[in-house]
Amino acid sequence: MNRKMVFSLIGRILLLEGALLLLPLAVSLYYQDGGQIPFLLTIVLCETLGLLLSRLFRTENQVIYAKEGFFVTALAWLSVSALGALPFVISGEIPSYVDAFFETVSGFTTTGASILNDVESMSRSMLIWRSFTHWIGGMGVLVLMVAIMPNLSGRTIHVLRAEMPGPTMGKLSPRLRDTAKILYLLYIAMTVLELILLVAGGMPLFDSAIHTFGTAGTGGFGMKAASIAGYTPYQQWVIAVFMMLFGVNFNLYFLLVMGRFRSALRSEELWTYLFIVFGATLLIYVNIAYQFSNMGDAVRAAYFQVTSISSTTGFSTVNFDEWPTLSRMILVLLMFIGACAGSTAGGLKVSRVVLLYKTTRREIRHLLHPRSVTSVRFEGKPVDSPTLISIGTYFALYIGLFAAFWFIISFQPNFDGVSNFTAVAACYNNIGPGLNLVGPAASYSAYSPFCKIVLSIAMLFGRLEIYPMLISLSPSTWIKK
Amino acid sequence: MNRKMVFSLIGRILLLEGALLLLPLAVSLYYQDGGQIPFLLTIVLCETLGLLLSRLFRTENQVIYAKEGFFVTALAWLSVSALGALPFVISGEIPSYVDAFFETVSGFTTTGASILNDVESMSRSMLIWRSFTHWIGGMGVLVLMVAIMPNLSGRTIHVLRAEMPGPTMGKLSPRLRDTAKILYLLYIAMTVLELILLVAGGMPLFDSAIHTFGTAGTGGFGMKAASIAGYTPYQQWVIAVFMMLFGVNFNLYFLLVMGRFRSALRSEELWTYLFIVFGATLLIYVNIAYQFSNMGDAVRAAYFQVTSISSTTGFSTVNFDEWPTLSRMILVLLMFIGACAGSTAGGLKVSRVVLLYKTTRREIRHLLHPRSVTSVRFEGKPVDSPTLISIGTYFALYIGLFAAFWFIISFQPNFDGVSNFTAVAACYNNIGPGLNLVGPAASYSAYSPFCKIVLSIAMLFGRLEIYPMLISLSPSTWIKK
Repeated sequence: MNRKMVFSLIGRILLLEGALLLLPLAVSLYYQDGGQIPFLLTIVLCETLGLLLSRLFRTENQVIYAKEGFFVTALAWLSVSALGALPFVISGEIPSYVDAFFETVSGFTTTGASILNDVESMSRSMLIWRSFTHWIGGMGVLVLMVAIMPNLSGRTIHVLRAEMPGPTMGKLSPRLRDTAKILYLLYIAMTVLELILLVAGGMPLFDSAIHTFGTAGTGGFGMKAASIAGYTPYQQWVIAVFMMLFGVNFNLYFLLVMGRFRSALRSEELWTYLFIVFGATLLIYVNIAYQFSNMGDAVRAAYFQVTSISSTTGFSTVNFDEWPTLSRMILVLLMFIGACAGSTAGGLKVSRVVLLYKTTRREIRHLLHPRSVTSVRFEGKPVDSPTLISIGTYFALYIGLFAAFWFIISFQPNFDGVSNFTAVAACYNNIGPGLNLVGPAASYSAYSPFCKIVLSIAMLFGRLEIYPMLISLSPSTWIKK
Repeated sequence: MNRKMVFSLIGRILLLEGALLLLPLAVSLYYQDGGQIPFLLTIVLCETLGLLLSRLFRTENQVIYAKEGFFVTALAWLSVSALGALPFVISGEIPSYVDAFFETVSGFTTTGASILNDVESMSRSMLIWRSFTHWIGGMGVLVLMVAIMPNLSGRTIHVLRAEMPGPTMGKLSPRLRDTAKILYLLYIAMTVLELILLVAGGMPLFDSAIHTFGTAGTGGFGMKAASIAGYTPYQQWVIAVFMMLFGVNFNLYFLLVMGRFRSALRSEELWTYLFIVFGATLLIYVNIAYQFSNMGDAVRAAYFQVTSISSTTGFSTVNFDEWPTLSRMILVLLMFIGACAGSTAGGLKVSRVVLLYKTTRREIRHLLHPRSVTSVRFEGKPVDSPTLISIGTYFALYIGLFAAFWFIISFQPNFDGVSNFTAVAACYNNIGPGLNLVGPAASYSAYSPFCKIVLSIAMLFGRLEIYPMLISLSPSTWIKK
């Protein structure tokens, strides 16, 4: 393993994190809310550590193999979370380091699960940092590094591939760096658009920034105990629509910007995703309509909760834990499907679900007509055997790890099966709220520190799509042969 | 589709069922418990229908393709269950036909889930029929037909393949009929051995027969409200060991009988299965030891419950629903794994789990060393790509259908998430008892008729390993192109 290159990359990531912390520092200076010292100390620490690592491990050999790619990715996410948790602890707003770490991992992985029982008592600068981690983690901290840092060779492809969600990485441009830049430009453009629409609709700028960050990264951290329930219907609609939009593959936006409307609208994954979102909205609307006095409110409640869960954001406008079983079950199923590959959302991803479905259909056809030869096609192209095996394997790993996390979490006394099941589902799929004891009106604070660490690891497994974490944790990475 | 051949096969199956009903008829004549008329009427109906179908649809063209194979299998199991439910209804011991159908499907599929709230009030002949269905369903009603009925051509391979559990069917003999005979002879030999051991240990003959049928088919219907709890430690040990033994691939017993000990003991699946059983026993023992005053009782309780669940039998000696969460979670995981392919047990099967694990390991190796070429080996042989894709597909279907059944069952009001989840897990994997409202001390009677039908279908999906039911229910089987 090229250790020098690994540590020098981690150093650069910390330098970048120090720079990103300037935003909450500025907010704390503006509001004079006591966050100045904590953020300043953390920035100094990040820059010092970052400089040390990147200078000490300077190397000419910038070659990175697949193993280093996975390892750097996992280590980078752990490092930015470990340091990003410090302002909460130093300021005393989240006194326990484990709690602060859980909250920061939850932020960067765009999960939005919180240990805070009283979010409204947090200072403004801490709130903005918490939500800003969503925005950074949504598109990816390594993608950002590649986009803006000079002197990175084209060898970092493995790093990007490990961070980008979905079974395949689209190459928007032959130069990797340009791809990263294009992605961030699109991301910023959509973020600004949502911010403008919210401010124009009468939401204060600070609130708008918090909710836009949470929507863009499909994270879900808010600033009110009631999440989005206290805002106007217009504001709720804007957030709901943008949650759906941020669940779409960014490659399609690129195609739209380039004027290739046809190619963009031909996407199988997009139509399946939209079908799922609107289908689920309709079913839930029918199921919950009796709780509402007018149809508009019921439709909005159904659509908001569906886009929130299927994009794995986790905002809420109603306490869906009080919905009928059918609606709650639909939401649990949506948790697992997630949104499109190449978006900021989590979950299994629609493209994997579609491919699993198609492979199954072919399998049945083959059972009935053993001599028939048909290929599985996706997005207009045939899919080869190794890819089909990979997707089956990913699914088995995904379910196996889910069971393992659920198993470990079940050591926690006094938590019922549904709470534990949905806690793991919500963390692993980067959603945030689950049901029962971890429902939208509750928090994760009652879990033991051990469970909080396990759930944090589950969030990282989910966000990085299993392999980087699994490979970093496997003994063969650590034991020299 | 060769409809004539399909219906003539169904006719023969019904003739066979009529013959099998002679056992409970004899029991009712012996005990004079009122079952005589119900059984006689059902036998007459089976024979009449059977004769009609096999005569009316007599055909020279005995060719059966894969599609007919799946369809005959599904239809045969539905038919024997539909008619096998009649004695319960006619005698008035289970007045509702849906309840009786649920109970009979549960019997034939060796599930052992019951709607009876007071099993001890049932007459002896009904009890023996209920348990006898386990024994018939364990090795398979079609396998039995092939073994004993004359005039069946070698074309019925598809039928057997659809009924035999596991990813591949072992060919014990080049002649299919001999394979079926060997399997049944081994099955009968082991059944008789258990019966003798139980009777020798002081269990009344009737009780011994009931419990031997339940063990051999890995079903789980008993005759006491407390299942096996009231029997002596020796009797519990005998049943526990035989539950484990009936979870082993019958091909291995054949090898043992043929004196090929080495080949038998080389089985990867066997060792993995034993490792799972003893590992789970140890973990649960450590977890529940505090509830017992002596070690022997704790070990027996742990081992009995583990072999019962992992072989998907469903007997119990303690109410494991009152165990600590960890032990209950282990049991839920065991529910999904099941036992060996080619045994009478249900679940995903150990061989599939092993293959999924190995494919995952290869996938990770391939991610780390993209140019490496390694094959997945199982039982000493390399496994080809189509098989790996099939297993991934089967797993995805298995999980997808599980989610679908859970989803449908969640319409039932007043049932909590854990009850519904474990009800589906216990029916789909052919185990019997779940947790909470469907725990070992409870029954399925509180479910609505609709849910009982859905759970019956889930049992058939599980016992026949998905495809026969899926293909029979799919529109393309019914709509002519």
